[in-house]
Amino acid sequence: MKILVINAGSSSLKYQLINIDDESVIAKGMCERIGIDGRIKHTAFDGREYVEEAEMKNHTEAFKYVEYALVKSDAAVLKSMSEIGAVGHRIVQGGAIFDKPELVNEDVIEKILELSELAPLHNIGSVQGIRACIECLGSELPQVVVFDNSFHNTMPPHAYMYAIPYEYYEKYAVRRYGFHGTSHKYVSAKCAEVMGRDISELKLITCHLGNGSSITAVDGGKCIDTSMGFTPLDGLIMGTRSGSLDPSVVTFLGEKEGISYKEMSELLNKKSGYLGVSGISNDDRDLQEKAAEGNERAKLAIKMLDYQIIKLIGSYAAAMNGVDAIVFTGGIGENVDVHRAAVCKGLTYLGVDFDFEKNAGLRGRIAELSKPGSKVKIYVIPTNEELSIARDTYALVSGK
Amino acid sequence: MKILVINAGSSSLKYQLINIDDESVIAKGMCERIGIDGRIKHTAFDGREYVEEAEMKNHTEAFKYVEYALVKSDAAVLKSMSEIGAVGHRIVQGGAIFDKPELVNEDVIEKILELSELAPLHNIGSVQGIRACIECLGSELPQVVVFDNSFHNTMPPHAYMYAIPYEYYEKYAVRRYGFHGTSHKYVSAKCAEVMGRDISELKLITCHLGNGSSITAVDGGKCIDTSMGFTPLDGLIMGTRSGSLDPSVVTFLGEKEGISYKEMSELLNKKSGYLGVSGISNDDRDLQEKAAEGNERAKLAIKMLDYQIIKLIGSYAAAMNGVDAIVFTGGIGENVDVHRAAVCKGLTYLGVDFDFEKNAGLRGRIAELSKPGSKVKIYVIPTNEELSIARDTYALVSGK
Repeated sequence: MKILVINAGSSSLKYQLINIDDESVIAKGMCERIGIDGRIKHTAFDGREYVEEAEMKNHTEAFKYVEYALVKSDAAVLKSMSEIGAVGHRIVQGGAIFDKPELVNEDVIEKILELSELAPLHNIGSVQGIRACIECLGSELPQVVVFDNSFHNTMPPHAYMYAIPYEYYEKYAVRRYGFHGTSHKYVSAKCAEVMGRDISELKLITCHLGNGSSITAVDGGKCIDTSMGFTPLDGLIMGTRSGSLDPSVVTFLGEKEGISYKEMSELLNKKSGYLGVSGISNDDRDLQEKAAEGNERAKLAIKMLDYQIIKLIGSYAAAMNGVDAIVFTGGIGENVDVHRAAVCKGLTYLGVDFDFEKNAGLRGRIAELSKPGSKVKIYVIPTNEELSIARDTYALVSGK
Repeated sequence: MKILVINAGSSSLKYQLINIDDESVIAKGMCERIGIDGRIKHTAFDGREYVEEAEMKNHTEAFKYVEYALVKSDAAVLKSMSEIGAVGHRIVQGGAIFDKPELVNEDVIEKILELSELAPLHNIGSVQGIRACIECLGSELPQVVVFDNSFHNTMPPHAYMYAIPYEYYEKYAVRRYGFHGTSHKYVSAKCAEVMGRDISELKLITCHLGNGSSITAVDGGKCIDTSMGFTPLDGLIMGTRSGSLDPSVVTFLGEKEGISYKEMSELLNKKSGYLGVSGISNDDRDLQEKAAEGNERAKLAIKMLDYQIIKLIGSYAAAMNGVDAIVFTGGIGENVDVHRAAVCKGLTYLGVDFDFEKNAGLRGRIAELSKPGSKVKIYVIPTNEELSIARDTYALVSGK
């Protein structure tokens, strides 16, 4: 079966067409700047490309370009869209309502929209992606929603509750949800496979580090804690996000600056993190470059990230009373050797014997970066959220 | 020299009269409910007591009762207030301005008042305490201010910076300051003494757990990180304080509930923590009682504290790449065996071999609670902030 995986944001629509039989990628691409101007870049399995700049007023218009790319462009891979057996959508926030993938229907769409308040940046885009697929492909084609936080639903209350008045948990479902669940699930399972061990007997810490970053403690295959929380703002310093804070910082700054809660949320989500500390960029590559040139604030931002990763790994090792392996994934985790080295050199107390030589220059492929005798293993495992979503979609559609 | 140590809050004034020559306590007491109604309880070294309910409109009126208690009451210990050689004041927030004790003068008082915004609950009370002493004892008597966060001034920028726009650090000095510094300093020094080791070679984690709680990583005698932050709201769940949060929780709730930043700050400082989660009490003793009766939310609040302590200890062990000893102090740390047991049983991965038997029932005295072979030592060390302040005061006054 061919499964189309959709990851729609507020102004973007990423997709992959996956042959679930051999788990190969038939084509992938992305529509960007939807509602602003518009651009599609599409790549077929054999390297053929289709790129076009064209106005895309909304997700439905963007999806028309996806159809064109898949069926009619020079980089087409299908005779007709009817070859697609199912669509799988990544949904950021499933709240406390969804703890497993669901077949799309109007009721499900409504609930996803209701949850939008919990992840204002993301769920609305997802629903626009779903609606675009229904409009273009018809409502007969099975569509599945896979929630980015389902994997975290095994967290116990002492890990997911915030120490605020309990009524807000009851009234608004304010609690830690976690995100990047599909990625943490995928790399933790893959790690057990690579280690040749049963995941039920392993204590793993998975570090998904990119423009958004989160770390998860996976005990016996189950998430017991994760650093993103009520929203993807919690936890580590990120590209433009602050991570966890003394809440007094929020109330103090809000009052001093005379800004609304909405403006404050914008400030903490879009102007903080790497960008806010460095004043230069949200991108790790830019900061590495500036840091190499001696820029102190770029160095500070990078050091803050490394230090916070070290502390979170330490806290999750404590939460599980031990750790067998630590996994790096995501854009930074997979590709940036200096971050992995900075983190792992501070973990010898856990029994990490890091192979700095093997680490140097390693990018984007599965590798064991600890030396053979290392008590705690270190791995790089490229994440594959799309494949994970395709698998979940297939499982639900085929009843497996 | 006899030194009077003052710890003034917004509606309270605690004091201890200490003979610095033998470090003995001559008398101690507390005025409560200042500005509401008023009550003094005073105890002399030999057990004599003086208790009175009387109107205390302000700190100066309260201090008159302290004078009476010390000199004229049935529990008097002085012939005249002129026997006092110096006064030492505990000040919560020294900001980035004060990194060591200072002799009081008008300039210092002004600066302390300016810092009040950073610790709205505390500094104003402290200044009222200083002014009361000047009024009652004259401006000739040397008074010293000892700042609760000076000990934390050795933190490096990657530990004290928040990942918000850098301009707010420049404009308002928003950063992690830490509190309970006098306590962390005292118990870490005492721990090294008890271990018979030079503190410069030790990695210590000091857990000050009480109605307010903070944990500090002390590497070689210097604080390298601490859990309270910009204000005493950061870090762990406390009696009525939330601890660290996903800042989205603040902006989301603020908007939903339609409350001001001031009201939000009140909510997070006074209605959250143990009280907010349990809905019962801010007091650990009450929650232990209710938990024993099977109350689920009391159990949850207690478990949240234990879990968060475990995670912080883990993160600081990682921050220092190891730990030699963990110290429990403060009302809960010194007296509540079940918390110490719950925390330490989850730390065997660090090499903690906890003596549960020795721990059971142990209250308020120095004790080693790890078994002889334990790689990481566990201690209970009662804190003594007043003695520490008296020592600092004497050192400054005597020029030592």
